[in-house]
Formats: sequence, C-alpha cells, structure tokens
Amino acid sequence: MNVDPDDLSRRDAYQLMIGAITPRPIAWISTRSMGGGLNLAPFSFFNGVTSDPMIISVAIGTRRGEHKDTFTNIVDMEEFVVNVVEERHANAMVATSADYPPEVSEFEAVGIETEPSETVRVPRVKGAPIALECHFERLLTVGHGPTHLILGRVLNVHVRDDLLDADGRIDPSRFTAVGRLGQQLYCAVREAIEIERPR
Amino acid sequence: MNVDPDDLSRRDAYQLMIGAITPRPIAWISTRSMGGGLNLAPFSFFNGVTSDPMIISVAIGTRRGEHKDTFTNIVDMEEFVVNVVEERHANAMVATSADYPPEVSEFEAVGIETEPSETVRVPRVKGAPIALECHFERLLTVGHGPTHLILGRVLNVHVRDDLLDADGRIDPSRFTAVGRLGQQLYCAVREAIEIERPR
Repeated sequence: MNVDPDDLSRRDAYQLMIGAITPRPIAWISTRSMGGGLNLAPFSFFNGVTSDPMIISVAIGTRRGEHKDTFTNIVDMEEFVVNVVEERHANAMVATSADYPPEVSEFEAVGIETEPSETVRVPRVKGAPIALECHFERLLTVGHGPTHLILGRVLNVHVRDDLLDADGRIDPSRFTAVGRLGQQLYCAVREAIEIERPR
Repeated sequence: MNVDPDDLSRRDAYQLMIGAITPRPIAWISTRSMGGGLNLAPFSFFNGVTSDPMIISVAIGTRRGEHKDTFTNIVDMEEFVVNVVEERHANAMVATSADYPPEVSEFEAVGIETEPSETVRVPRVKGAPIALECHFERLLTVGHGPTHLILGRVLNVHVRDDLLDADGRIDPSRFTAVGRLGQQLYCAVREAIEIERPR
C-alpha cells in the first residue's frame, strides 16, 4: 500500500504515523505553572538530539486549537522534568493524558507522589526510574496545528540507584521501560538483544 | 544517583543518554549522493513531529569532525527514505552503521536489495515493512559537535500489505519492530499492551 498522507483525514494521518514509527520513548513531563500549580502529561514524539551538551526534543501539539498546559508552563517557567515510565506506572501515565483543566494537578488526580528536583523548581515523579531535569532552550513552530518542537537542555539526570550496574551504567534489565506504539498500544521492554556494532 | 551531564566525558554523557531514553525507534535512512551513489545507515534520535502535515525529525551528529554521508546527501539532494527495521533485518541494520567511505554503498556491502520509491529518486529497502519517503524541509544546528536536527516532510508512506488489518490500519502484531536501547542493545516488539486513553 502506498499513501500520500496529505490525502488522509487528520485523524487517519495521525493514526498512520503513530503506527509507523515505533517503539517510541515516552516523556512523562512534569511542569509548574506561573500560579504554582503542577502538571504531568505524557508525550511520545520525544527523543534525544545530542549529548554534547545533553539536549532533548519533544513535540507538543495543540488540543482543540489551544495550547496544552505542558507547553504553556514550559514557555512561561523555562523548566520541566522528563520522567521515564516503567511498567508499574503505565496505567497512571495514560490516566494523566486526560483533559484536566489547568488548575487540576494530574499528580493529585491520579495519585502520583512528587519528589523535589535538584536543579529546577519542578518536582519529579517520586520513584521514577530516571528523570531528566531540563531547561527550556529553543522552540521551533512546525505544521498547521501548529506543533511546537521544544528543545530542552538536561541539567541533571537522576537515576534510581537500583538501576545501576557495577560500572555505574544503566542496566536495562533492572527496570521495565514502557514504549508507545500505535492505536492505544504500548510495549514493555523485558528483553534486550545485544548486537555488536562494527568498527 | 544525580549527575550533571556537563561533568561527564563526552563518551559517558552519550552512554548515559542512550541508556536513559528508551526504547527509541530506528530510522534506517537511505539516501543518494550527488554522484549517484547510494547510502544506508541507522539513526535512533528519530521521531515524529506532527502529522498535519506529516513531518519527522532525525538528529545527525558528526563523526570525527566530519559530516556523515547521510547528512551530506540529504542536504545536497533534499530527499531521503526512512525504512522501518523489523527483526530479520536487525543484524544488517547494525552492519550498515560501519564507517564505510562515501563511494561504498551499504546496500551492496551488507547485501540489502533496493526497491524504487514512488515520489523520490532514493530507493527504499526491499521488503521493509514500512518506508517513509521524505523531502528535506528544515535544519536546526544544535550543540557542539555540531548535531543537525533534520526535519523531513513525508510525501509517501509505503506499508507492506501483510501488515494491514481489515480496517487498513497497521497491526503491530504482524511484524516485529526493532527499537534501540543503551549500550549495544536493541529490543524486539513482540507484544502490545492495550491501555485505553481517558477522554
């Protein structure tokens, strides 16, 4: 099958795209609003950009023509935390994608505890295996929605101690990362395959 | 453990980053040079940006201070194809990450057949489950390497017929997508977990 995505409805183009690009890492992003309220929401158009210095990107679209709270808070406060999602948090993570009003904290609505960050005023998800404390660096406006591609510089990486191997590296067998697939589907990374890279 | 990534060596910062952001989708990118030579190489700092219109991003760093062939070809020819990697291609995909000179086609070196694309002069990987034919749209220069964040507009989506369910959607159980983890590790997406999104 060959499809020109411009021939599809917006919904079908989105569904095709999220089914085609898999598995996607999930940024479960915590932010704080100007008024002090906390927000927590998942995004899977997320990835690393460079490690020199450590910069990540996350694309945030609009919802019914309005900015999402996460976008507004990042632009207003210039700070956010990317929490990594492990399997025991999968249902809570999806629950935080509901359309809560700005004054409702998804932390409270879903029953997730906070833990203070080291370098930003935004708390991380308590017990998250990994958390990336970020400073908002740049923004690129893309497409018709529009979507904003946010670049964040990672100021601090928090890694839960039980994830580290003897060399201080993250051992993927010590936690079960959750990835996003198409439709309403997710995957749990239970097994790693080693393939040596050629020189 | 809390780490300021700026305190790490470049190698350690890279290793920490690829271990922290998982599972990453893999763009196995085919390009053509000005001279007509073909190139094929994998990148995992890759994701969707928006589906309206369909735009993807891929970050391409430098290697020993030089542009990678994929970057040069995308900028010169304004066309590329993102091939999706399934498990039977995992070893070949990793083999194409070797440092071949520009005049060597990884298709030939690794024994991957080509198939013509519909909308671009760059062929896709024959038999790839999904291929995104892209036009180079924009470039953002990031970090010290520097790294270039490439935005590509998807002109045609090729989906292998056996992947489609009765509604014409991609059924993730009909192919085994490969994702990138840290170190020299990969994952195979064999199982999908359905979690209904709240309204």
